[in-house]
Amino acid sequence: MSNNTTPIQGSCQVVITGGAGFLGVRLARALLAQGKLSLAGAAPVDIGRITLVDRAAPPDDVLADDRVTALIGDLNALLESKEAAVPVVTAQTAVVFHLAAAVSGECEADFDLGMRSNFAATLTLLENCRALKAKPIVVFASSLAVFGDAPGVPLPPVIEDNTLPTPQSSYGIQKFIGEQLMADFTRKGFIQGRSVRLMTVSVRPGRPNGAASSFLSGMLREPLAGIRATCPVPADTPVALSSPARTIAGLIAAAQASDQTWGPRTALTLPALTTTPAEMAAALERVAGPEVAALIDWTPDAAIHNIVKTWPARISARRAAGLGLLPESSFEEIVREYIRENTDAIRSAIR
Amino acid sequence: MSNNTTPIQGSCQVVITGGAGFLGVRLARALLAQGKLSLAGAAPVDIGRITLVDRAAPPDDVLADDRVTALIGDLNALLESKEAAVPVVTAQTAVVFHLAAAVSGECEADFDLGMRSNFAATLTLLENCRALKAKPIVVFASSLAVFGDAPGVPLPPVIEDNTLPTPQSSYGIQKFIGEQLMADFTRKGFIQGRSVRLMTVSVRPGRPNGAASSFLSGMLREPLAGIRATCPVPADTPVALSSPARTIAGLIAAAQASDQTWGPRTALTLPALTTTPAEMAAALERVAGPEVAALIDWTPDAAIHNIVKTWPARISARRAAGLGLLPESSFEEIVREYIRENTDAIRSAIR
Repeated sequence: MSNNTTPIQGSCQVVITGGAGFLGVRLARALLAQGKLSLAGAAPVDIGRITLVDRAAPPDDVLADDRVTALIGDLNALLESKEAAVPVVTAQTAVVFHLAAAVSGECEADFDLGMRSNFAATLTLLENCRALKAKPIVVFASSLAVFGDAPGVPLPPVIEDNTLPTPQSSYGIQKFIGEQLMADFTRKGFIQGRSVRLMTVSVRPGRPNGAASSFLSGMLREPLAGIRATCPVPADTPVALSSPARTIAGLIAAAQASDQTWGPRTALTLPALTTTPAEMAAALERVAGPEVAALIDWTPDAAIHNIVKTWPARISARRAAGLGLLPESSFEEIVREYIRENTDAIRSAIR
Repeated sequence: MSNNTTPIQGSCQVVITGGAGFLGVRLARALLAQGKLSLAGAAPVDIGRITLVDRAAPPDDVLADDRVTALIGDLNALLESKEAAVPVVTAQTAVVFHLAAAVSGECEADFDLGMRSNFAATLTLLENCRALKAKPIVVFASSLAVFGDAPGVPLPPVIEDNTLPTPQSSYGIQKFIGEQLMADFTRKGFIQGRSVRLMTVSVRPGRPNGAASSFLSGMLREPLAGIRATCPVPADTPVALSSPARTIAGLIAAAQASDQTWGPRTALTLPALTTTPAEMAAALERVAGPEVAALIDWTPDAAIHNIVKTWPARISARRAAGLGLLPESSFEEIVREYIRENTDAIRSAIR
């Protein structure tokens, strides 16, 4: 971790909001590993600094890198204080990955929290970027949650790039409003905005959370650690998933694509693998054996099923394909990737 | 104009923002004339009070009605001052028609003005409504400007109720964000929201304004007053228009429709007549004679044509039709309506 804020010649500076979260840390690691970034199609330049903005501190191994700075605090407070000793974005900021957000369950339980964390923070961040002389690239993590099935506006069988989003949650509405702000700030020349809609990510490492989608990681992660887990929806329920690696690849591609390759200012939907819990369990059995797959309890929960069945499960991500972003070919590939990356965690859990 | 703020038993109170504007005054006159309002499909009740909120005072004949109160000031300031002697909405407010807005040209020239007048005012109004114990009906005047033709996301030949809006102006983005806020405040049970997308209104009485669409009224209104007027686009350019009367009918129908008739929380696009300047001039000639139609100068202006040609011209307003809202059958009908309603203005102008 460096305290030196002098810009490095011929290099670029990156800001990641939500930088201590699962995706933020993973994105930072990927950027540090690749070392260079091609800014909207330009020749690659060294990444001189990555600022991770979050309420929590990032892990020590990331902080140990000289190129990493942590800015710890409430994002709204950091953005709103105009005389902050260390502003979130500066004249040297070339790329902002805006991942910070309150999750859907929180936003549904506390409307004002969602409006502050997801809507107001996004608007204030964009205003801060607009105030800079340079025009930073802003990659905004939107979500498949902008789509929702509702009476009178049923979802089409397959989500296309030009499908009308009709969000059925405050989280989805706030993300969709963020996409609109991104589009207009870009059109006005205040920023170079790239909105990407992220899929449900599986397999997430760590612990279960309160999200209705939690089981889509848990039903793999827990059995692999020797722990029973529940699948609360019918085994043939179609679901759209993406691995952590492909999700990060999508975020980086958004920053690196030229304007022409990127296309319109509307959000780009990332690719997803359409699978079912039955197929996921079968993949787990093939990779880890029947005794591991047998740790899944198939216990229906109507409340969770009622939420999950309103989510789009089939995505035609043509724009993403044009950027070379494709879904995994099978869930087995995702399970093998998770095991490869989490060998230590799995071993220590089983021990 | 009444200063008595005591609610009248068995009656309802209406608020109109932008109440001194062309549509606001016309809506007030229509509501005063019908005297009753069916609130979201309920049995009709008397309209006890109409509060017209605007920077300007409404005309004397409207103010002369005992049921009318004027609240004069900046809408944002009125909404933001929590200790205002006369708040914009009160526990007695049954219906709010939110028409106040900065127009598209202003919003394009002054981004911050648009964000304040169109976006922030709408959010603050909705928050004020949410703070009430009752759940008022809020009718939000959105606009066909949410649709815009752009590279990579061309408009379909006909706009349907589920066409993806891709606004190409700050005004359009702000209106589309307003639609999203309306949908979520409604879903959460804070208000009973109804968003309607208004068409270009023709024939508007009064003077030309800076809007690119100004000629669509001026090329009729000015010749009828004996004044030369310019049509700046090719005579065969398709345009979508609605008369003042049908626009007001759409706003009132939005307040009166039952939830079931109204349908989803997405915005309802009002019907439009698709015509061309050539057809408009021919209608003028049939109604008012060739010497009046000859007062139109056909002088192309590339800047205006480049804007007008990105506007959708063909609308399939199926949801509106389900509410009994239909477009005029011909532009001639619109011209005759304008002459009927503006005989005095036309006579005095010619004299």
